[in-house]
Amino acid sequence: MGHFVNVEDLSSNQVMHLIDRAIAYKKGEVKHVTGHVVNMFYENSTRTKHSFEMAQYRLGMHIINFEVQTSSVQKGESLYDSLLTMKALGVDTAVIRHFDDNYYEPLMNLGINIVNAGSGCGSHPSQSLLDMMTIYEEFGNFESLTVAIIGDLVHSRVAHSNMQLLKALGARVLLVGPEWYFNERMLQWGEYVDIETAIEISDVVMMLRVQLERHDDVMLMSAEGYHESYGLSLERQKRMKPHAIIMHPAPVNRNVEIADALVECSQSRIVRQMENGVYMRMAILESVMEG
Amino acid sequence: MGHFVNVEDLSSNQVMHLIDRAIAYKKGEVKHVTGHVVNMFYENSTRTKHSFEMAQYRLGMHIINFEVQTSSVQKGESLYDSLLTMKALGVDTAVIRHFDDNYYEPLMNLGINIVNAGSGCGSHPSQSLLDMMTIYEEFGNFESLTVAIIGDLVHSRVAHSNMQLLKALGARVLLVGPEWYFNERMLQWGEYVDIETAIEISDVVMMLRVQLERHDDVMLMSAEGYHESYGLSLERQKRMKPHAIIMHPAPVNRNVEIADALVECSQSRIVRQMENGVYMRMAILESVMEG
Amino acid sequence: MGHFVNVEDLSSNQVMHLIDRAIAYKKGEVKHVTGHVVNMFYENSTRTKHSFEMAQYRLGMHIINFEVQTSSVQKGESLYDSLLTMKALGVDTAVIRHFDDNYYEPLMNLGINIVNAGSGCGSHPSQSLLDMMTIYEEFGNFESLTVAIIGDLVHSRVAHSNMQLLKALGARVLLVGPEWYFNERMLQWGEYVDIETAIEISDVVMMLRVQLERHDDVMLMSAEGYHESYGLSLERQKRMKPHAIIMHPAPVNRNVEIADALVECSQSRIVRQMENGVYMRMAILESVMEG
Repeated sequence: MGHFVNVEDLSSNQVMHLIDRAIAYKKGEVKHVTGHVVNMFYENSTRTKHSFEMAQYRLGMHIINFEVQTSSVQKGESLYDSLLTMKALGVDTAVIRHFDDNYYEPLMNLGINIVNAGSGCGSHPSQSLLDMMTIYEEFGNFESLTVAIIGDLVHSRVAHSNMQLLKALGARVLLVGPEWYFNERMLQWGEYVDIETAIEISDVVMMLRVQLERHDDVMLMSAEGYHESYGLSLERQKRMKPHAIIMHPAPVNRNVEIADALVECSQSRIVRQMENGVYMRMAILESVMEG
Repeated sequence: MGHFVNVEDLSSNQVMHLIDRAIAYKKGEVKHVTGHVVNMFYENSTRTKHSFEMAQYRLGMHIINFEVQTSSVQKGESLYDSLLTMKALGVDTAVIRHFDDNYYEPLMNLGINIVNAGSGCGSHPSQSLLDMMTIYEEFGNFESLTVAIIGDLVHSRVAHSNMQLLKALGARVLLVGPEWYFNERMLQWGEYVDIETAIEISDVVMMLRVQLERHDDVMLMSAEGYHESYGLSLERQKRMKPHAIIMHPAPVNRNVEIADALVECSQSRIVRQMENGVYMRMAILESVMEG
Repeated sequence: MGHFVNVEDLSSNQVMHLIDRAIAYKKGEVKHVTGHVVNMFYENSTRTKHSFEMAQYRLGMHIINFEVQTSSVQKGESLYDSLLTMKALGVDTAVIRHFDDNYYEPLMNLGINIVNAGSGCGSHPSQSLLDMMTIYEEFGNFESLTVAIIGDLVHSRVAHSNMQLLKALGARVLLVGPEWYFNERMLQWGEYVDIETAIEISDVVMMLRVQLERHDDVMLMSAEGYHESYGLSLERQKRMKPHAIIMHPAPVNRNVEIADALVECSQSRIVRQMENGVYMRMAILESVMEG
């Protein structure tokens, strides 16, 4: 029995082990991990939910999809009580996305493996690990790399996790974005620089989603204005290093964070990230199932 | 081909047979019951729906989940016509929860097995049977037992079924609750007594859910008032017989029907009920599939 | 790799091949077509969705159900981007129902098989083919047949496709319905006649659904008025040829298009159409998977 709830708990060795296992799966390793797994998504998801489902299918697990909208959640049932039910029914692993940052804390002693598929603005550890896998697959190391993380550094679920992991793994981290998306605490992991510098010196240009559906505050600029100030335009892409890669956790707001024509360009690894997600989630599920 | 729509149709022998089969499954019996089953839940459910799904999975059935919200029900299709479709597609068994008390009556001659997963305020026969299984598993008989059923005796789907089954199986039944949740008809199955007496002399203290989402009438007391008058408080639990058990169909309104700390206490069989539900539903499905 | 998006692309030979394959499956042929298929229904469906699911199950495919309501579609993700994600996750075939007539055009070069499960008012090719299969199964040919298509000739997804297919296959096509559901373009495929004539001389009486949920314009007559003018009443059914059959794509508005008592009468093939749909969809999926 094990949990996978945030990346802060992972040593660099553990991260590298998960990357190795994911790459092994990508190369075709077949492994059967029996178990009953429930997917409980309290927030909308396409990529993460179906990526976990595909990973579970490939591992041969029995999948139960818990539909929040048609469950007893609508009668006021708490997450704890829903999970207590799942355990009683024989489920051993729960993959959960929830709007509370620390939803998983009261669930750790229920005797069921918890896999965090995104929590509030807090973290999205499986996304962070598939990002690390994609970078490692490209460059074979982290120590020689400069990685720019650009955009909504505050609300993005992956921004904080990625800063921490990249720093721990030895990369140089550049932070770029509107000042209202920045706070001093981030300086322990990276340097705050302007976008034009970042674009030119980085090996990895990691764009963050403008999470229009998440914040109530009106964004302080228009979509066009954002693209002009902080987006990856065609013009900026031309100034990237030739071997540098473009990343984005998706869904992309086309022509906001990234010019439409760049989403599937030769330097983009956005589709690759989604492909790798299946294998990384196989590695994560294997790891929690084996405790 | 068979139906399972209410407990009134079952003899005590049939009830005991289903309990025996459920216990056999719990002890590890493996049986493959081929068939295509559709789950049609017109009302929200966590426990019952996923419990049936787990039972179907364990029996090796092919499961189709019919989503009312995204189906032709939204174009005005009747339950009869939806089921006619399912039969045409090759489905042989339908597990249905519906808000009409007698929804299943027009469906009995369609040539498809009907399993009632809860109907209106009418009945919830699979819940009643898993309750009987849980009691039998604990005490090995019904004749020596006094069972208190406490709470909303009118709206609870299981209250009536459980009164009838327990009386038929030889138990003494005590009925407890606010007078506006009581009617004379129930006296054929049990005695109406005050809660303090019931708590002290019962072997089984079965609490019913206050179905806040079901009745339009404002409950005639606050949640705190209800707990004080009819809830299983810590104080009342202390006056229970040492070997007596606590039951509840769940989801529990914590601190309304039952004090929070008692839900998972050593005398509680609430989690056990959910566990047993999977095995009882395997026995029920086996029974209808085998006619 | 192949697509199945409309019937206009199909030659009569291809239609007959699909009918042959569907009949082979109906007679019991077993075939395993491996693959990961996603069902993406942007509009409500019972019959088509679950019919495809049953076909996929019988072919042994891995099924992913994409739920529009709980996906990133709610964050504004486009169909293209959702499908790009599905491809990245390893999906090879997508079965899609969408409200845009030509939704599939931008998706044809994504490297994923597209199966159209209904588009706008445009087409519903799998329904058309199961209709052809049902007619062929009954009569063994098309050339000798007169087929009346009765009702909302404009908004019905199957009306246009069926006119074209029937004409190409050699049948005589009669068109019946309110004048506001008729346009000149249809005359290339059939003759516009009055209902009383059509009923008496047709071998196939194909009623179309009044799609009350689709048009904003108030229907220009009441449901009773429609039934009287254009519905298959008990009186009209008596004047049909003895061997003639009744068809309807369902869901039926009982007592609007067809008298309630005729839906399951001996001349009706409405249930048979739904049965045949599973086998035709197996043939369609086989065909796209094999390119």
